[in-house]
Amino acid sequence: MLLQALAFTHSLIKEAVQPGDTVIDATIGNGHDTLLLAQLVGATGKVIGFDIQKQAILNTENRLKKADAHSKVSLYNQGHETIKDIIDPDDKVALVIFNLGYLPKGDKTVVTTPKTTLEGIKQSLTLLKKNGLLLLMVYHGHDGGTKEKNAILDFSKSLPQERYSVLNYQYLNQKNDPPFLIAIEKRKE
Amino acid sequence: MLLQALAFTHSLIKEAVQPGDTVIDATIGNGHDTLLLAQLVGATGKVIGFDIQKQAILNTENRLKKADAHSKVSLYNQGHETIKDIIDPDDKVALVIFNLGYLPKGDKTVVTTPKTTLEGIKQSLTLLKKNGLLLLMVYHGHDGGTKEKNAILDFSKSLPQERYSVLNYQYLNQKNDPPFLIAIEKRKE
Repeated sequence: MLLQALAFTHSLIKEAVQPGDTVIDATIGNGHDTLLLAQLVGATGKVIGFDIQKQAILNTENRLKKADAHSKVSLYNQGHETIKDIIDPDDKVALVIFNLGYLPKGDKTVVTTPKTTLEGIKQSLTLLKKNGLLLLMVYHGHDGGTKEKNAILDFSKSLPQERYSVLNYQYLNQKNDPPFLIAIEKRKE
Repeated sequence: MLLQALAFTHSLIKEAVQPGDTVIDATIGNGHDTLLLAQLVGATGKVIGFDIQKQAILNTENRLKKADAHSKVSLYNQGHETIKDIIDPDDKVALVIFNLGYLPKGDKTVVTTPKTTLEGIKQSLTLLKKNGLLLLMVYHGHDGGTKEKNAILDFSKSLPQERYSVLNYQYLNQKNDPPFLIAIEKRKE
């Protein structure tokens, strides 16, 4: 009955994203979240996706085309530290999601790293509208995963309570470093 | 939009408790949760409550009588380390809740302590039915609160994954040691 971290994340996405919204998938991977977001923003919304791996772009394009959902999605084959170069600052963003780690079924040596991840997170927080959500699914079982996890936790804890609510949703007794969620809600612009 | 820990706990209670269930309030305090549980179990269910403070029993009795909800509630002026002496082992329990710390608006020197808390938690886990929930709201800002918090976290992390899911729902950037939730679901009897 308790939702696993991934299911809880999806429940937050479905609750937060409304037709017409602008949302960002900062790590599109195989495009599962990108497709969900495209379905939720409807005909008038838009989804902007980022990934440094060409394979992720191709996989996601295929997934979106099969579901006839590609028209409202713009994909960029570049890192999420360039979000601010793409998004119009006036285009208030309802939700940003990061899946941190490596591309599932892809090259496990290509992973997200603390410096660019934190840069992408900071830019995302600036772009979020009031009550907008930043969701960080933290996969940390790979080499370097602990370092990235700790950098994200330190940054998250330092955010001022007046402006952000920072929730940790995490299972405590699972083996094999399952992913956990950090969800940040912007309380004030 | 993100639920605070207390609101999330109440949402779990409302989802988990069905008419006819047997449930336990291990720390009745001023009886807020006791009343909610009494309303949820309906005419055929039962609520068993514990508190070591006479004032908590009186406050809760008053609250239940005002709401005409006292008939399905049995209150015991004794600690939750005696749960197993009261509950029939065949009486499968759907939910147990502990609010750990001191009685709000009461004597702040009377607090729950690791030894009896852990004993109550262990007995509760034995009594829970499959998919039953143990909810621990951990208030830890008082003297001794950190020690109790750490004892609970250590115990929770040690529970076998095959039998229990242990979720931590916690805000990371709030001042003044706000309470957090540990929710344990029994996966197998």
